[in-house]
Amino acid sequence: MHIGFLGGTGMEARGLALRWAAAGASVILGSRSLEMAAASAESCNEILGASLIRGMSNREMLAASEIILLTVPYGQAVDAIESCRLLLTHNHIIVDVTVPMVFREGHAEFVEQSGLSNAEIIAGHLPDGVPLVTAFKTIPAAILTDLQKTLDCDVFVCGDCETARQKVIQAAAAIPSLRPLDGGPLKNARTLELMTVLAAELNRRYKKKGARYRIVGI
Amino acid sequence: MHIGFLGGTGMEARGLALRWAAAGASVILGSRSLEMAAASAESCNEILGASLIRGMSNREMLAASEIILLTVPYGQAVDAIESCRLLLTHNHIIVDVTVPMVFREGHAEFVEQSGLSNAEIIAGHLPDGVPLVTAFKTIPAAILTDLQKTLDCDVFVCGDCETARQKVIQAAAAIPSLRPLDGGPLKNARTLELMTVLAAELNRRYKKKGARYRIVGI
Repeated sequence: MHIGFLGGTGMEARGLALRWAAAGASVILGSRSLEMAAASAESCNEILGASLIRGMSNREMLAASEIILLTVPYGQAVDAIESCRLLLTHNHIIVDVTVPMVFREGHAEFVEQSGLSNAEIIAGHLPDGVPLVTAFKTIPAAILTDLQKTLDCDVFVCGDCETARQKVIQAAAAIPSLRPLDGGPLKNARTLELMTVLAAELNRRYKKKGARYRIVGI
Repeated sequence: MHIGFLGGTGMEARGLALRWAAAGASVILGSRSLEMAAASAESCNEILGASLIRGMSNREMLAASEIILLTVPYGQAVDAIESCRLLLTHNHIIVDVTVPMVFREGHAEFVEQSGLSNAEIIAGHLPDGVPLVTAFKTIPAAILTDLQKTLDCDVFVCGDCETARQKVIQAAAAIPSLRPLDGGPLKNARTLELMTVLAAELNRRYKKKGARYRIVGI
C-alpha cells in the first residue's frame, strides 16, 4: 500500500502519515518544495524513531503512490489538483480530507459554496476516470498527531466509485483504533463537512480539542 | 418536569415517552383525537406495567405541559404548529425532532427546502417569544421504543434561546444512558437532519436499525 500526500506539511497530513507509517504502510509526503517535504518527513521520522516516511516533490510522490491524500487548506484544493492534473492517472485515487470551515470570533462556520461540498467541487476538476473519495474529514488533526492518543472513533468514507471507496476503506482499516464506515455516495460529503463544523463547535463549548464521531449500533 | 407530545401516536413520540416515564417524568401524549391519545398512552402503559403516561387532546396537553415535543411527520410540522398557535405561550418550549427525509428505492434522501432545516422552517411559524429547540433528531425510534436496549449515545441540542436549550438539556439528561450535548444555535439543526439521513444510509448498508452517534473526546 503506497500512500502519498499532496500537501504534506500540514497537521492533518502529518498526523495521518504518522499513524499509517506506524502501522507499516509506505508513506510519502509531497510538497511543491522538495526541501519542505524532506523537512516534514524528517520531523515525522524523529517522532517515530525510525526513517519510515519519505519526503518528495509532488511530481515524484504522484509517480510512486496510488492513494493520494489531498491535505491542503480547503481553498487551495482546486489549485493543487489543477497544478498536477496532467500527472494524475486512472491508477490514482484522490482522497479529499478538506473542510470548508472558517473561524469567526472563535466560532466555527461552514463556508457555503453554492450548496456544494468541497469534495464535489474538487471532483469537478479531476480528469475523467480519476476517482475521488472523501474520508478523514471528521478526524481532528490534534488527535492524529499525538500518537499517545487512541483514536477510538469512526472514519466515514464516501465516493461514487465503489472500487475506489473500498480501497480507501481497506487502507483506513490499517490504522489502529480507527473504524472505517462506508458512507455511500459523494453527495454525503456535505454531511461530513458540516459534522466537522459541529465537532469544532462542541470543542469550543466544552473546551476540548479532539471531538470526533463514533457510530453506536453498527 | 411536565413533558407533552404534540402528535403522540408515532414511534418517536412513544419511544421518548416510554424512556421519560420510566425515568419518573410526567408525560402526556397529545393528539387531535382524545381516543387516539388515550389508546397510545394505554399501550405505552402496558409496556411499562404501570399507568405512568396520560393521553389528552392537544389542547389539554398544551395546558398541562411546559416542554412540548413536536413529533409529527416532518411535512406536517408547520400545520401542527399553526393549528395550536393560539394556545402556545412564553412558558412553552417547542422541541422539534423532525427530519426531512424520504426513502427512494430503499435509500434515505434528505429533502431540500430552500437550504433551510425543517427546524428553521418551523421556528418561522411560532409566535414571538415561544422558543424552538431541536433535539433527538438523530436518535432512532426503533431503539427508543425497545426498553431492553441501552441508548448509549449522545443527543445534540440546538436552539437560539439559551435558557430553553438548557432546560431541554436538563430534561434529556433524565433519560438513562443518553448524554445531552449543547450543539449551539438553531442553524446547526441542518447538520443534525443530514446526520440522521447518513445514519439511515449506514443502517441500510450494514443491515441494522439503530445507528446513532456518540462523540468521543468530550
